[in-house]
Amino acid sequence: MITTCTPEPYPSAEKRVGRSTLSFVSVGDVSKRILLGRKLRSSQLGETLLPKRIALPVFASDALSSVAYAPDEVFIMLAVAGASTYVWSWKIGIAVALVMLTVIASYRQTVHAYPSGGGDYEVATVNLGRNAGVTVASALLVDYVLTVAVSISSAAQYAAGAIPGLIGHEATAATVAVILLTAMNLRGVRESGAFFAVPTYLFMVAILGMCGYGLLRLLAGDLPLAESAGLEIVPDEGWDGPLSQVALLFLLARAFSSGCAALTGVEAISNGVPAFRKPKSRNAATTLLMLGLIAISMMMSVIVLAKKMSIRYVDPHHLDKLRAAGGSGLPEGYDQHPVISQIANGVFDHFPPGFYFVVTVTGIILVLAANTAFNGFPVLGSILAQDGLAPRSLGSRGDRLAYSNGIVFLAAMSILLIIVFDAETTKLIQLYIVGVFVSFNLSQLGMIRHWTRHLATERDPAVRRRMLRSRAINTFGLGMTAVVLVIVLITKFLAGAWITILAMAFFFMVMKAIGRHYARVELELAADEQDKVMPTRVHAIVLASKLHKPTLRALAFARATRPNVLEAIYVSIDAKATNRLLEEWDDRHLDIPLKVLHSPYREVVRPIVEYTQEIRRASPRGVVAVYIPEYVVGRWWEQLLHNQTALRLKGRLLFTPGVMVISVPYQLRSSQLAQERGRLDEERVHAGDLRRGRVASGDTPRQIDDV
Amino acid sequence: MITTCTPEPYPSAEKRVGRSTLSFVSVGDVSKRILLGRKLRSSQLGETLLPKRIALPVFASDALSSVAYAPDEVFIMLAVAGASTYVWSWKIGIAVALVMLTVIASYRQTVHAYPSGGGDYEVATVNLGRNAGVTVASALLVDYVLTVAVSISSAAQYAAGAIPGLIGHEATAATVAVILLTAMNLRGVRESGAFFAVPTYLFMVAILGMCGYGLLRLLAGDLPLAESAGLEIVPDEGWDGPLSQVALLFLLARAFSSGCAALTGVEAISNGVPAFRKPKSRNAATTLLMLGLIAISMMMSVIVLAKKMSIRYVDPHHLDKLRAAGGSGLPEGYDQHPVISQIANGVFDHFPPGFYFVVTVTGIILVLAANTAFNGFPVLGSILAQDGLAPRSLGSRGDRLAYSNGIVFLAAMSILLIIVFDAETTKLIQLYIVGVFVSFNLSQLGMIRHWTRHLATERDPAVRRRMLRSRAINTFGLGMTAVVLVIVLITKFLAGAWITILAMAFFFMVMKAIGRHYARVELELAADEQDKVMPTRVHAIVLASKLHKPTLRALAFARATRPNVLEAIYVSIDAKATNRLLEEWDDRHLDIPLKVLHSPYREVVRPIVEYTQEIRRASPRGVVAVYIPEYVVGRWWEQLLHNQTALRLKGRLLFTPGVMVISVPYQLRSSQLAQERGRLDEERVHAGDLRRGRVASGDTPRQIDDV
Repeated sequence: MITTCTPEPYPSAEKRVGRSTLSFVSVGDVSKRILLGRKLRSSQLGETLLPKRIALPVFASDALSSVAYAPDEVFIMLAVAGASTYVWSWKIGIAVALVMLTVIASYRQTVHAYPSGGGDYEVATVNLGRNAGVTVASALLVDYVLTVAVSISSAAQYAAGAIPGLIGHEATAATVAVILLTAMNLRGVRESGAFFAVPTYLFMVAILGMCGYGLLRLLAGDLPLAESAGLEIVPDEGWDGPLSQVALLFLLARAFSSGCAALTGVEAISNGVPAFRKPKSRNAATTLLMLGLIAISMMMSVIVLAKKMSIRYVDPHHLDKLRAAGGSGLPEGYDQHPVISQIANGVFDHFPPGFYFVVTVTGIILVLAANTAFNGFPVLGSILAQDGLAPRSLGSRGDRLAYSNGIVFLAAMSILLIIVFDAETTKLIQLYIVGVFVSFNLSQLGMIRHWTRHLATERDPAVRRRMLRSRAINTFGLGMTAVVLVIVLITKFLAGAWITILAMAFFFMVMKAIGRHYARVELELAADEQDKVMPTRVHAIVLASKLHKPTLRALAFARATRPNVLEAIYVSIDAKATNRLLEEWDDRHLDIPLKVLHSPYREVVRPIVEYTQEIRRASPRGVVAVYIPEYVVGRWWEQLLHNQTALRLKGRLLFTPGVMVISVPYQLRSSQLAQERGRLDEERVHAGDLRRGRVASGDTPRQIDDV
Repeated sequence: MITTCTPEPYPSAEKRVGRSTLSFVSVGDVSKRILLGRKLRSSQLGETLLPKRIALPVFASDALSSVAYAPDEVFIMLAVAGASTYVWSWKIGIAVALVMLTVIASYRQTVHAYPSGGGDYEVATVNLGRNAGVTVASALLVDYVLTVAVSISSAAQYAAGAIPGLIGHEATAATVAVILLTAMNLRGVRESGAFFAVPTYLFMVAILGMCGYGLLRLLAGDLPLAESAGLEIVPDEGWDGPLSQVALLFLLARAFSSGCAALTGVEAISNGVPAFRKPKSRNAATTLLMLGLIAISMMMSVIVLAKKMSIRYVDPHHLDKLRAAGGSGLPEGYDQHPVISQIANGVFDHFPPGFYFVVTVTGIILVLAANTAFNGFPVLGSILAQDGLAPRSLGSRGDRLAYSNGIVFLAAMSILLIIVFDAETTKLIQLYIVGVFVSFNLSQLGMIRHWTRHLATERDPAVRRRMLRSRAINTFGLGMTAVVLVIVLITKFLAGAWITILAMAFFFMVMKAIGRHYARVELELAADEQDKVMPTRVHAIVLASKLHKPTLRALAFARATRPNVLEAIYVSIDAKATNRLLEEWDDRHLDIPLKVLHSPYREVVRPIVEYTQEIRRASPRGVVAVYIPEYVVGRWWEQLLHNQTALRLKGRLLFTPGVMVISVPYQLRSSQLAQERGRLDEERVHAGDLRRGRVASGDTPRQIDDV
C-alpha cells in the first residue's frame, strides 16, 4: 500500500532568500560578510549533470596541476649528481608517462565496473574486504591533506617568482591562502562548471601554447637558452666522482618516484562517475583518456623544452649548489624560478605578458587543485559515514557542524604541514605519493578479483573476452604500480614517507574503532520479542518555574495527551517566590495539582530527578513524562541567559530509565532571527555538491509514500 | 491544603560515593585525579554554623593579609622625596587606622540592619535603587579580580625573598600559583574552619609575636638596624629640593591612599552573617571589631618597628633609587625584601627559623586571601542571578558549567593583570582600592537612608536613640570614606585607577543589559486569558531510523499516550535500506503506519520539519508530538558518534510553533558511566559553600508539599 503524493509546491528559493536578506541582516551577519564575502543566492545554482567538456576541467584540475611541480622535482633529484645526469630527464618523463597510461587504462576499467562513484574505496571494500577499504580510505584522507599542502606551497613558489616581494615569505603566503580557501569553503562557495572550466582550459592553452611556440622556435633555431643555462651545478658530496651503476640506478629511481607526483589526482574521475551525462561510464572513460593524453603531452613538452633550454634547477633551499660557469659562487641577486616560469621567461623573452599569463594561470590552477581537496573531503566523509567508519552525522547533508569541522581539520593539518616544512614543495612531495600508490595498488588488486569473480559465472564469450582483456589490463597495472610503490617506499621512506604511513595507520585505527563501536551498539540495540510491551500508565509532570505563557502552554499540551496522572512540579528555593506562585496558581483556578519540592540548598535538577525515580519505583511498568516548558530565543547570548537549567535537567533525565522528556517550546519574537538563520544555513551550497551531481537544495523534489 | 510528607531516607552519601569510586574509575578520571588531586568524599563535610573563633579566620584572612603589603606601599610612596619623609610614616598609619575604625563601626551597623548577608550590594539596592546596587556589584566583581592579582603578586614577592632563585621570575611564579588555585577550586576544595583557622592564627602569632619581640628588644635597647638602614634614598627628579606645602600634601595623600589598601576585605563579614552562630548579628559585629583591632595593631606595630629599624624601602622595580651611604651606587648583590621580611630578618637575627616562619606564614595567608576571592565570586554570582543581573543558571546550585566559567573567568582576568603589570604589587595597588571605596561610599549612603526611613516610623524613644546613633556613625563614615575616595581618585586616577573605572563601567553595562533582557522576556511571557486554550487533537509522529529497541520503546511510549493520530516517519536517503526497513516493519506486525519521506539529497532534518509544518497547517488548533528515540551513551567520544542528527532536529523543531519534542531515551550499558559521573559532580563541594552556611549536599533535607 504505497501511495505517492504530489509534493507541495515550494516558494521559490530566490523569493525566500531575497526577503530574508532585507529583513534579517544582523550586525553579526554584516561583519561575517565582510570577512567571508557576499552570501550566494540559491537561485544562482541549478546545475545538472555534466557534459564531457565541463566534466574534464571539474575533475582534471588536480591531475593537470601537478605538471607545475612534477618536472621540477625530476630535475632537482637529478641535480644531486650535477647537471650531467640531466640527459636522463626525458627518459624519466617517458617512464612516468608510461605509468600514467597504464593507470589510466586501469581506471577506465574501474569506471565501467563501478559506475556508482565509490572509486578505489568501493573497489577495495567490495573485492578485498573491509580492512582493504579502510586502508584505502586512510590513504585518501592523508592525500587530501597533502594535496592542499603541496598545491598551495607550489602556488606560493610561482607567486614569489612573479612578485619578488614574496621571496622568503612563501610559508606565510601559503598559510594565508589556505585560510582564505577555508573561509570560502566554510561559507559554501558555488561550484559551477565555469568556475573550473575557465581556468583549467586557460591553463591548457597557456602550457600547450607556450610549449608549442617554444618548439616552433626550437625548429626555427632561435630558442633562447634559459637564464640559468650558464650556471653549473655542484654535485652533492659523494656524488661528484663518476657514478657506480647502483648509485645511478638509485638516483634515477628517486627522480622517477618524484616525477610520479604527476599521477596524483588521476583517480578523481572514478569518484565522479554519477555526475557525468549518460552514458555515464563511457563518457567518464573517454574523459579519463583525454585527461591522460593532455597531462602527458604537457609534462613531456615541459621536460623536453627545459632540457633544450639548458635549464639548471636545484632544490630552492640549497641554491648554493649553483655557481656561475667557471666562477666560484652564485651570481649576485640570482633567484631560481620554477621550471615553467623559466621556460615562459625564455620563450616569451620579447613578450613579457606571455610570461605573466603562464605564471598567473599556473598559480590559479594550483589553488583550484587545493580546492578540489576541500570538496572531496566531505564527500569521502559522507561515504565513510554511511559505512559506519565515520560519525553517522557526516552522512546526511546539512550537518554544518560536522561538515565545518571536517573542513577546518583539513585546513589545520595542511597548514601544520606547510609550516613544519616551510612550504618546501620538494620536501612535501616526499610524503605525497605513498598514499596515492597504496590506493592504486589495492584498487588494481580489487579489480583483478572483480573480473575473476565475474568470469566464474559469465558464459557469453564476447563478454568473457572483454573481461579477460580488462583483467589483463588491471594485472599489468598492478604490476606497474606495485613496482612504483616499492621504489617510492625505498627512496622516500626516510625522507618523509614514514610520516604518511604513520598518519595512515592512525586514521586506519580510528576508523576501525568507530566501526567496532557502531557494531557493538547495533548488537545491543537489536530488537527482540520483549520490546513489544507497552507501558501500563503515563504519569505526566509539568515543570513550573513561573506561571507564564510557556508553563500554561506546557500544561495545555500535557493535558491534551490525557495522561493517567497529571501534576505540576515546582522546586522551591525561596519561600517568598513559592508563596507568590501558589497564590497565582489558586487565582487562575488551574485544576491541575501543584506539587512543591523544597530544595533549601538551591539545587534544581536533583530533586526533580529523584522525584521521577520515586514515581518510577512506585509503578515500574509505567512511564514518567516530564514536560519542560522552554522559551526559544534567537541570539546566541540570549541562549546563554535561558534554558541552561532545562538543558542540564534534560541531560540528567535521559539517564533515568522509564522517563521521557518533552520539550514544549514557546517561541519568543527574537526566535524568528534564528529560524531564518537556520533555513539559510540549510539552503547554503556545500563543497562537493557539484561533483556529487547535486542540484540546488531549494528545488529538492520529494515524495511521500504511505505503507 | 498543604501536606508535608516525611522525606524518604537517602542512602548515606558515604556509602554511595564509596561504591562508585570502586566501580567507575575511568582512565579520564585517573588522569584528572593526578592533575587535580584526590576527590573528596562527601562525608568529610558536615560543618554547621560557625562560632566566632572560627568565623574570624574564615572571614578575616583577606583583611589581615593586607598588612603584608600596605605598610610597604606607604614607605614606597614616601620614598619619592627621599628617606626624610619617612618621619610621616606612623602618622599616615594612624590616619589609616582611623579610617579603618570608622569603616568597622559603620559595618557593625550594617550587620545589625541586614543580617541576611547581602552586604553592600543589598544595602545599596534596597536603599538607593537598582543602579546603585549594580554599581556596587561591578565594584565587587572588579575587586575580586584584583584581590587575586594583588595577593598572589605579593605572595610571589615574599617567596622570592625566601627563595633567591625566584627573583626576577615573580610573574611566572604568580601565574602558576593562580593556575593551581583555579584547579583546586574547579575540583571543589573542602573549606573547613580549620583550613582557615590554622594559617590565620599562625599568621597573627607570627606577626604579633615578631613585633612584640622586636618592641621588647627596642625597650632593651638592642634592636638591630635593618640591613637597608645604611642605604640612602635618591629622591625622584623634582622632589629633591625642600618640598612646598602643596607637594608635601600631595605626597602624603598618595602614601595615605596606598596605605588604605589595608582596608580591603573588611566588608567580608557583612556578607557572611548567615554563617555565624546565633545571635548572628551580634556575633558578627563582635568579630568585626576583633578583626579591626587585630589588623590595626599589626599594621601599626609593623610601621613603628620599620621606622625604628631605619628600614629603607623603595619601588622594587626602581632599586636604583637606593645607594650606599656616601657611595655612588647600590651595594653589590643587594636584594630588597618586603618590609615584614626585613623586620623578621633583623628581629630574629640570631634565630633564622623565626624569619622563615614569618615569611612562610605570610605567603600562605596571602594565598588564602586570594582563595577567598574564588569563594566569594560564585556567591556574588548567585545573588546577582537571583536579581536577574546575571545568567539565571548561576542562581541554582550545581550548575557546574556556569560555575566553572566564573572561576576560569576570575583566574584569566587576574593572570592577565599579573602578566601586564609583571606582578608588581605597587602598580596593582593603584587599581585596587577605587572599587573598595566606591562600595564603602554607596553602602554608607544607603545605611543613612535606611535609618532615616526607619526613624520616620519608629516611635520607641530607646530604639530611636539607637537609630540616631547608628545614623550618626554612618554619616561620619560616609564623610570619611568620601574624602578617602576623592583622595584616591585624585592621586591614583592616571596611575591605573582609570582601568578599574573602565572595567566597572563595562560590568555595569553588561548587568544592566541582562536585567533589561530578562524584564523584556518576562513581559513577553506574562500569562493572559487566551492561554487557557487546550489543543483539540494530538498528532504523534515517531521518528524511525531503524527498527531497533529505541524505536520500539518510542513507539510503545507514544502509543501509551493515546494520541488522536499515531504514525512512524522514516526519511529515506537510500532505497535499499528503505526496503529493508519496510520488510522488517511488516514482519513485526506493528499496527502503526510507517510513512516514508524521500530525501534524494540526503537531507534528514528539513523533510521532517516541513512535514510537521504541513500537519500543523492542516489542523492549526492541534499539536504535533514528535517522538525522537535516542540512545544514551556514556563516553564523550561516543556522544560525537550518536544523536548528532537528533540534536540538530530538536534544535530546528523548537522553532516550529505547535510542536512538542519528546526524547525517548534508551540507556546503553556505557551510559552508567556518565550517570555516575553526573551524580558525583552534583555531590561535589563547591567554592563558597562554607561561607553560605551550607552543609554537605548528601544530607539535603527535603519535604514534599501538596497543594
